[in-house]
Amino acid sequence: MRIGVDAMGGDFAPAGVVKGALDAEGLLGDDDKIVLIGDESAIREHLAEADGHERFIRIEHAGEVIGMDESPVEALRQKPGSSIAKMATLAAAGELDAIISAGNTGACVAAAQMRLRRLRGVHRPGIAIITPTYAGPVIMCDVGANVNCRPEHLYQYGLMSAEYSRCICGIAEPRVALLSIGSEDAKGNQLVKETRELFKNDPEVKFVGNVEGSDMFHGACDVVVTEGFVGNVALKLMEGLAEGLFKSTYLELTRLNPDLASQFEHAITTIREKYDFNEYGGAPLLGVNGICIICHGASQARGITNAIGVTLDFAETHINDRITERLGRRRQSGDDS
Amino acid sequence: MRIGVDAMGGDFAPAGVVKGALDAEGLLGDDDKIVLIGDESAIREHLAEADGHERFIRIEHAGEVIGMDESPVEALRQKPGSSIAKMATLAAAGELDAIISAGNTGACVAAAQMRLRRLRGVHRPGIAIITPTYAGPVIMCDVGANVNCRPEHLYQYGLMSAEYSRCICGIAEPRVALLSIGSEDAKGNQLVKETRELFKNDPEVKFVGNVEGSDMFHGACDVVVTEGFVGNVALKLMEGLAEGLFKSTYLELTRLNPDLASQFEHAITTIREKYDFNEYGGAPLLGVNGICIICHGASQARGITNAIGVTLDFAETHINDRITERLGRRRQSGDDS
Repeated sequence: MRIGVDAMGGDFAPAGVVKGALDAEGLLGDDDKIVLIGDESAIREHLAEADGHERFIRIEHAGEVIGMDESPVEALRQKPGSSIAKMATLAAAGELDAIISAGNTGACVAAAQMRLRRLRGVHRPGIAIITPTYAGPVIMCDVGANVNCRPEHLYQYGLMSAEYSRCICGIAEPRVALLSIGSEDAKGNQLVKETRELFKNDPEVKFVGNVEGSDMFHGACDVVVTEGFVGNVALKLMEGLAEGLFKSTYLELTRLNPDLASQFEHAITTIREKYDFNEYGGAPLLGVNGICIICHGASQARGITNAIGVTLDFAETHINDRITERLGRRRQSGDDS
Repeated sequence: MRIGVDAMGGDFAPAGVVKGALDAEGLLGDDDKIVLIGDESAIREHLAEADGHERFIRIEHAGEVIGMDESPVEALRQKPGSSIAKMATLAAAGELDAIISAGNTGACVAAAQMRLRRLRGVHRPGIAIITPTYAGPVIMCDVGANVNCRPEHLYQYGLMSAEYSRCICGIAEPRVALLSIGSEDAKGNQLVKETRELFKNDPEVKFVGNVEGSDMFHGACDVVVTEGFVGNVALKLMEGLAEGLFKSTYLELTRLNPDLASQFEHAITTIREKYDFNEYGGAPLLGVNGICIICHGASQARGITNAIGVTLDFAETHINDRITERLGRRRQSGDDS
């Protein structure tokens, strides 16, 4: 497959992205190619010392870059020659089979929606992240693609994420939950209450009801559904708190016993890695008619390499076909418009 | 002052609540009394072995209890003799100066709103928690009192929480931020965008703009404002993640070096305590015309004792007078209806 990678996206672009692409060589099959999209001379500079990269990497020049803080839709309109816009256009023209970006998330989501369009039957695409917990991985969707959510959007996030969980986490019957402020029916806001009914009326979903934020860390569910605003706040909160706790733990250990603390730096590093977004590589934008993997803006080379791995897994397990089939079955049963 | 404590509220009631009240003796002044509200015989049983408790504790019998999972408004209507309903009624009649409950949060909020009413000028009360971070305490409001939020509610949460921060955290000019999904003006949902304008138009607020979940752990602000659904999800997520990380850290340390791991149990315990809600005791429902302190449902005796401490501090620093004055000043400037 031909995997487009936005060479200009993220805090460590282009150097980190190019290195991540080079490091992905071992993951690729004979027919797989990486297409780096961005400023050609900058990319060439970082490729210079890598012998034989021509076997699996080629460059598509894009002269503009959408900044992390630009307004997505406006930036796409003003910069048709940006790496994100160009990448999406190439994918829409059938010249790329997948796209990856650690750049402006909103712009990437908007470009993918506009160019790739949605899978048949999908109302809104959603970004699905895998959250590590000691009880196993939990998929959370959506974490920021859509902040104007209707109940049917959330319901479809549940169906799509369940397919993702089956394919990527190997869970045969994923337990789907709604993120809320109490497990009782009466709790939550209007959006949660209406979505709950949609899940309850679908016997094919293993719906386990509402969960609170804490429950998802204790093995209560395999998929947790939420609207993009809440999901994004939750994602960033988890990152910040984990980082803060690791910092506090290390400082406290150092204060109590400086000699021994250093021995435990390794232990903390091990756990930290489990919670490191670079380890997970990237999160798919579920529901677009193609493969779009969104990386963390602070992705380093390892994050990009792993995102290429995620892309290959995503393609190999035919998740999009499964989603289309699942939504089609639902449509035929006449319960979803 | 006369502090009403719901003896039947929370996972460890009545034993834990009664013990928490007994342990609070040292915090009380000569004129301070604790009034335990709940099943008299059950309370007496737990008081039996405590000599001299009559000096500072008395009992008000309430024969009913509102369960943690009951629908708040309905439960209050059906159980006028419940500890929460009775406590709020006594406060409204001027027989209690403050109320504390670790019971059904929704019922406690509803009872306080209905009986104590709101402070002059306040649109909606909000629950304000203190979140510990290595950069200092951050106040988050609202964490669950109000899930149908309008911009002016959020704006007032900012004003009220700033007063709380001044009084309790000793911060002269608290930096107020809005919890969102990106720091740029263009990001966030409609509620955030409209609230942002209200803050920007008030020169008396030290408004530092939008923050993401991670920023609040890195010293970006002293007060973070959010609507009740998001705030409650965030609160529970923080609890669950912290617990999960401590568990993972301990398991990893044990795996790497079982002998040394035990030495670090103490260090982990120390950090854990900093993040333990029992340490903070309780969160005020800011904006009610009285003092209402909401405790975590899993509060143990120590949590209740500390909540009594919070109550005394809240009264001593005259936070409600400051809130009323602040909102009055705002009203006079003609910018708030």
